[in-house]
Amino acid sequence: MASHRTELRVRYADTDQGGVVYNSNYLVFFEVGRTEMMRALGVPYAQLEIEGTIMPIVEAHVNYMAPARYDDLLIIESDVIEVARVRLKIETKVIHAETGQLLAQGWVWLAAIDKMGKLKRLPEALVVAIGK
Amino acid sequence: MASHRTELRVRYADTDQGGVVYNSNYLVFFEVGRTEMMRALGVPYAQLEIEGTIMPIVEAHVNYMAPARYDDLLIIESDVIEVARVRLKIETKVIHAETGQLLAQGWVWLAAIDKMGKLKRLPEALVVAIGK
Amino acid sequence: MASHRTELRVRYADTDQGGVVYNSNYLVFFEVGRTEMMRALGVPYAQLEIEGTIMPIVEAHVNYMAPARYDDLLIIESDVIEVARVRLKIETKVIHAETGQLLAQGWVWLAAIDKMGKLKRLPEALVVAIGK
Amino acid sequence: MASHRTELRVRYADTDQGGVVYNSNYLVFFEVGRTEMMRALGVPYAQLEIEGTIMPIVEAHVNYMAPARYDDLLIIESDVIEVARVRLKIETKVIHAETGQLLAQGWVWLAAIDKMGKLKRLPEALVVAIGK
Repeated sequence: MASHRTELRVRYADTDQGGVVYNSNYLVFFEVGRTEMMRALGVPYAQLEIEGTIMPIVEAHVNYMAPARYDDLLIIESDVIEVARVRLKIETKVIHAETGQLLAQGWVWLAAIDKMGKLKRLPEALVVAIGK
Repeated sequence: MASHRTELRVRYADTDQGGVVYNSNYLVFFEVGRTEMMRALGVPYAQLEIEGTIMPIVEAHVNYMAPARYDDLLIIESDVIEVARVRLKIETKVIHAETGQLLAQGWVWLAAIDKMGKLKRLPEALVVAIGK
Repeated sequence: MASHRTELRVRYADTDQGGVVYNSNYLVFFEVGRTEMMRALGVPYAQLEIEGTIMPIVEAHVNYMAPARYDDLLIIESDVIEVARVRLKIETKVIHAETGQLLAQGWVWLAAIDKMGKLKRLPEALVVAIGK
Repeated sequence: MASHRTELRVRYADTDQGGVVYNSNYLVFFEVGRTEMMRALGVPYAQLEIEGTIMPIVEAHVNYMAPARYDDLLIIESDVIEVARVRLKIETKVIHAETGQLLAQGWVWLAAIDKMGKLKRLPEALVVAIGK
């Protein structure tokens, strides 16, 4: 299934007083990864929302192996690992670009809902693009 | 004009690797201050939005005197210092609750717009409450 | 084992363009919950860090059941559910204060490390306070 | 004096329920701009900190002209506009990459301090690089 890599630079704003990236920011990194994957698939998430599909996270999991630090260049690797009728599971790895070390790994389940918040089928264009 | 004090505890997430609160977070503290001031005035901002008035910041200024640190209890003091037809200026002081030291001080201009983004008069209820 | 409830008000800064709290912010809410639990236990986390124990998250999990929204008053319920030699598992529930609805639930594993990043035993004072 | 342009993509996490980028995030965009400017000048900020110079913001100003929105590609233009013995003023423009519209403009004063928090001269390498 679909897989994608994008790069991201750690900002000072991402760090905390422990001198490392604060734990919740990895979920933002996951967002950047899947957004760029969807763009690369030809189905930008911004376009999906305009067309009436919102995809909130319904479950998230993160394993933190080693800290990312200020100004580190990170590789965000996203992989679609499961596709169901109304939801999608994406695994994400956060890798230190210079050393290749795996810093964090996790996954999210995204559901497809309409503007009223009702579950709906994943957009056909997205399912087709993922399957290619 | 209207004046209000509220308290806020610095979170680990607010800090950066310098061991102090990251600069942009003071604008979030300002938000907390003016939100609680408006609630105390009987005109909660959430209610204004429901009734069709959005109040984005059009200009912001912050002077950083001394750093706030993790777990500090802060006093956020908000003062309405100018009221115009379609906008409002609020000054905010960030004070260390224990020592009384002034850590930061700034102000924002908020404009009133409707859901189309068009400028509109400040809600009457808000103007009246501020003037009391 | 130790259990604690604290309250928290959703900020405008916490929301996203979907009109609900952005997914990563729940991990910040979890932080607020466990910080206040540790303070209530008489072992403030800020004090632990001063004494040389840092407690980074090594694993996190969140189930999002229903969205929290701007200005919602939330109850953050924290429960220590497992204590090991060098780590601690805390479950957190995010509850809508007015309706009592469970909005999100998750847990984190926190490890104890020293300033060099080496694993160390959980501070004795913390273990004792939790066991009470 | 030194001038630099870098690009940045608006994240979903940057937006608020008004459907636009939340006000404090522009200060984070300013950080990204000046960080990339310093890297381009051959004096990466991460390196300055390692060598003992921390550069906190002591004053910040932002004018918000038009909202940046989710997934917008932004140009962050940074210009050093004043250099003093212990501080530096940087102006930043946030421009919509596609339309060329100026969305926000502001400036920050950065001070140079040592690890004890004492003011110190700007690093010579930085002053030389800026003056070129």
